[in-house]
Amino acid sequence: MAISARFVSSLRRTALSSRAPSRLQCFRPTSQLRWNSTPAPTSATSEPHQPDAEGGVKGKAAPANTIKFTSESYPQLQRDDKFTKITEEHVKFFQDLLGSESSVIDGVSKDASEDIEAYNSDWMRKFRGHTKLVLKPSSTEEVSKILKYCNENMLAVVPQGGNTGLVGGSVPVFDEIVINLQKMNQIHSFDEVSGILVADAGVILENADNYLGGKGHVFPLDLGAKGSCQIGGNVATNAGGLRLLRYGSFHGNVLGVEAVLPDGSIMDDLSKLRKNNTGYDLKQLFIGGEGTIGIITKISIICPRRSPAVNVAYFGLESYEHVQQAFREAKGQLSEILSAFELMDGRTQKLVNRVKGKPMPLEGEHPFYCLIETSGSNADHDGEKLEKFLEYVMENEIVSDGILAQDQTQIQELWTWREGITECLGHDGGVYKYDLSIPIHELYDLVNETRDRLTEAGLVGADDSHPVVDVVGYGHMGDGNLHLNIPVRRFDKTVEKALEPWVYEWVQKRNGSISAEHGLGVTKKPYVGYSKSETMIKLMKQIKDLYDPNGIMNPYKYI
Amino acid sequence: MAISARFVSSLRRTALSSRAPSRLQCFRPTSQLRWNSTPAPTSATSEPHQPDAEGGVKGKAAPANTIKFTSESYPQLQRDDKFTKITEEHVKFFQDLLGSESSVIDGVSKDASEDIEAYNSDWMRKFRGHTKLVLKPSSTEEVSKILKYCNENMLAVVPQGGNTGLVGGSVPVFDEIVINLQKMNQIHSFDEVSGILVADAGVILENADNYLGGKGHVFPLDLGAKGSCQIGGNVATNAGGLRLLRYGSFHGNVLGVEAVLPDGSIMDDLSKLRKNNTGYDLKQLFIGGEGTIGIITKISIICPRRSPAVNVAYFGLESYEHVQQAFREAKGQLSEILSAFELMDGRTQKLVNRVKGKPMPLEGEHPFYCLIETSGSNADHDGEKLEKFLEYVMENEIVSDGILAQDQTQIQELWTWREGITECLGHDGGVYKYDLSIPIHELYDLVNETRDRLTEAGLVGADDSHPVVDVVGYGHMGDGNLHLNIPVRRFDKTVEKALEPWVYEWVQKRNGSISAEHGLGVTKKPYVGYSKSETMIKLMKQIKDLYDPNGIMNPYKYI
Repeated sequence: MAISARFVSSLRRTALSSRAPSRLQCFRPTSQLRWNSTPAPTSATSEPHQPDAEGGVKGKAAPANTIKFTSESYPQLQRDDKFTKITEEHVKFFQDLLGSESSVIDGVSKDASEDIEAYNSDWMRKFRGHTKLVLKPSSTEEVSKILKYCNENMLAVVPQGGNTGLVGGSVPVFDEIVINLQKMNQIHSFDEVSGILVADAGVILENADNYLGGKGHVFPLDLGAKGSCQIGGNVATNAGGLRLLRYGSFHGNVLGVEAVLPDGSIMDDLSKLRKNNTGYDLKQLFIGGEGTIGIITKISIICPRRSPAVNVAYFGLESYEHVQQAFREAKGQLSEILSAFELMDGRTQKLVNRVKGKPMPLEGEHPFYCLIETSGSNADHDGEKLEKFLEYVMENEIVSDGILAQDQTQIQELWTWREGITECLGHDGGVYKYDLSIPIHELYDLVNETRDRLTEAGLVGADDSHPVVDVVGYGHMGDGNLHLNIPVRRFDKTVEKALEPWVYEWVQKRNGSISAEHGLGVTKKPYVGYSKSETMIKLMKQIKDLYDPNGIMNPYKYI
Repeated sequence: MAISARFVSSLRRTALSSRAPSRLQCFRPTSQLRWNSTPAPTSATSEPHQPDAEGGVKGKAAPANTIKFTSESYPQLQRDDKFTKITEEHVKFFQDLLGSESSVIDGVSKDASEDIEAYNSDWMRKFRGHTKLVLKPSSTEEVSKILKYCNENMLAVVPQGGNTGLVGGSVPVFDEIVINLQKMNQIHSFDEVSGILVADAGVILENADNYLGGKGHVFPLDLGAKGSCQIGGNVATNAGGLRLLRYGSFHGNVLGVEAVLPDGSIMDDLSKLRKNNTGYDLKQLFIGGEGTIGIITKISIICPRRSPAVNVAYFGLESYEHVQQAFREAKGQLSEILSAFELMDGRTQKLVNRVKGKPMPLEGEHPFYCLIETSGSNADHDGEKLEKFLEYVMENEIVSDGILAQDQTQIQELWTWREGITECLGHDGGVYKYDLSIPIHELYDLVNETRDRLTEAGLVGADDSHPVVDVVGYGHMGDGNLHLNIPVRRFDKTVEKALEPWVYEWVQKRNGSISAEHGLGVTKKPYVGYSKSETMIKLMKQIKDLYDPNGIMNPYKYI
């Protein structure tokens, strides 16, 4: 047990005296709320590549108008001639319909490129469209009239929420009209007994969560982009994020959806009932439908009670086998209070250490690290469960070393070692990024095999002659969701050829998913066949054709 | 506090001494599993009417061959001439395909009525079809070949699992071929790390749960019919039951579905991934689709850890307002360990007392009773939380009296006061039964208003001149799910006219559901308009037509 004195000595000291050790931990953490913390600057689940002003991978982020057009990055995409080109007459219709000047950004009859650019390009500065018209309806009825007109006139559209997606789904490719939901931002009702919230699609996630916080509840989704993303977009992309392990997916939480279909009809399925077995559960098609069959305008969602007690522990472990053992024990012993089990390999943690220049939470180096969070209703009980769990994993040498946050500041500090990875990964240049679901027992194998493959090809090295800096892995272990990342000094066709389709084939062989939580959008559309059979793809196309026979909804994407 | 000494005195005694009071409670219940108990003789969520041998409502259940045909009970249903009548040639095809004699019950070329009757009628003895052919495929491929043939030959079919449904969905109306899944009963895999089970649709729920029990896990659905119902049927009907409050619905738990479509194609969506954002979530249409667009052949489902500590408390309360307060407090204080909150009105409890002849759990009479169950990983912690909660609800006079089970026998005994209601309700004769979702704050109003309405109409009374014995309510309060029941001495058109469509209109006005968990089947099909708009019904019909253009799947039902 020489290797792992920290927790154990802490536990003993806690038992023997009331002295709180300066860095070591006692097991009565104060009751604090992680969910009230300010949002991380980048998405916890994001893999951005932000080209610099020269289109390279270093330096300051490029201004929007220098971003490469998606139509150039994806030359195989061609504008579909069936779509009408927008005219001043069309603009006039929308201006008359929406009234307020702030609801129509018109780049057709005048130059509005400066105003429009933010709607044409995404926050990663990776995608850029050519739209000349942005509409901001204020009501479901306005959305309905817009879509009816677009459908009748063969005008293509892109629904847009907070525009924080990662696969290019929320910006146009060509001249599709952007329908931005930001003006539909009202919370309509909240029932404190049942915990059911009804709100507009354009409500910002953080606003919804803050509102619920005031009522002792929590939105069952959390992610780094919460300050910008909208709950309608979250539902449309079936966002996963940090609370899924505990509260499950939107397919279970969302009780009702109001959506406008391409022909303008309103699917009024805004049930506020936990149970309602009266026909096909059509709203489910819109959860993760990425705006390709309609626009979500309102949602009804069941929200859990906010946990007054939150604990965070951070471990070092000697192998992926140990990580799996720790996960199994955490599920068993922490059971109903386990709210996150995040995996970070040693390379990601050294990267954060190097880029941010702050000392590692644990002494020495470990090949793997885990962050465990518990959320419960009773701080004493949770502390005791965690103590017992920590004793077990230390005494059985499952975990080599660990630290337990003692207050909210430490909780936030430990989370930065998970949430800071994304930001730090871009530090050396660009990053090739994959968001994958893989059966847990094989999850980290992909990182090792990718590293071996690129190393054998002579692509990985410490100096500029090698394009690849490293191959790292982290992710939502509790959900079987790996983020495989390959930080590079420059984007390089040889690297790309070594990675694809090899990575997708590797995932396919294990019946994994090539997009665990990010969705399909533009980037994954060509690869869906690695995760879905021909029959499934045919059935999905049937649904698309059924709801959107003219194909005006978010074209060039998804399916 | 004079009214409510039981819990409080118990708590004080526990604190002051180690004497365990004979009937009162100590708060260190032994760790026991309710889920291992033998299944209740009837469904906890069922409302059967079992006509006696004379077609009346008293006496021994009628033999199957005396049950009234559904086609007679619902004369508005007419056999659709588009369906081919089954011939010996068809039977020959199925015999050649399925080989084994036990896989085809042939009532076409010979008299097999005795063997067939069990498949033609339901366990409530309320529905009875005219089929002359039952098929029992052993594999997905056989199901595929059967459906392809039926589709090409316009032969109508009824998928059948354990045949424990409550709305006539699993038996034929006319001569539809029964496709029974009982031979597809294998468990294919279980991953102890992720908790993901893959199994055939025909696995009996109790077998699945027992298998999982051996692995320290639990099936996320429990209901009284568990000894007969099949998991494929559970998913096809989106069964709710007793664990929904804690583990959520199948829309969140079911990760994958393999289903055969009417044209014989196999929808291979048997994902074992918690997260998989690669296209429309089509399997959701089959969850609660009641076998009208395909036959579920396998499911993949995420199963939680089995809770080693289970507690059950039983309360008496003075008003529905008090019940709501108790529910609010239970959600807040018991939070992550609350696994059931069941409501029973005083009338149901007196009925169980009278019919079963056993003493009430509490002294005196209360207008309302609740049963609360907790399930957690630590008996001491759960006991403490419950103790604190009980102190609170007693001291604040939210609860008038209560009892806490001290061991597994007492847990089962208290559950009989909830689960025994269904059985006892039929004691005086027939029962008119409704399974409704209603916003919680208005949930019990319907019972009072129905009672007033029938009383004002002179239909309720203590003697034989009145058809109605009583109007009672109970249900899954935690899910907003009320079972409104009207026990009667005889079925009576005047009573029916007083009830319908009034009950449905009442529910519609509150945006409730006319079928919370039982589904549509034959009985609710005409009433779906009370819970779904015209647009929704049109969209649902689109889906039906898309998947089953010939309409061969489970006709005369659902939509």
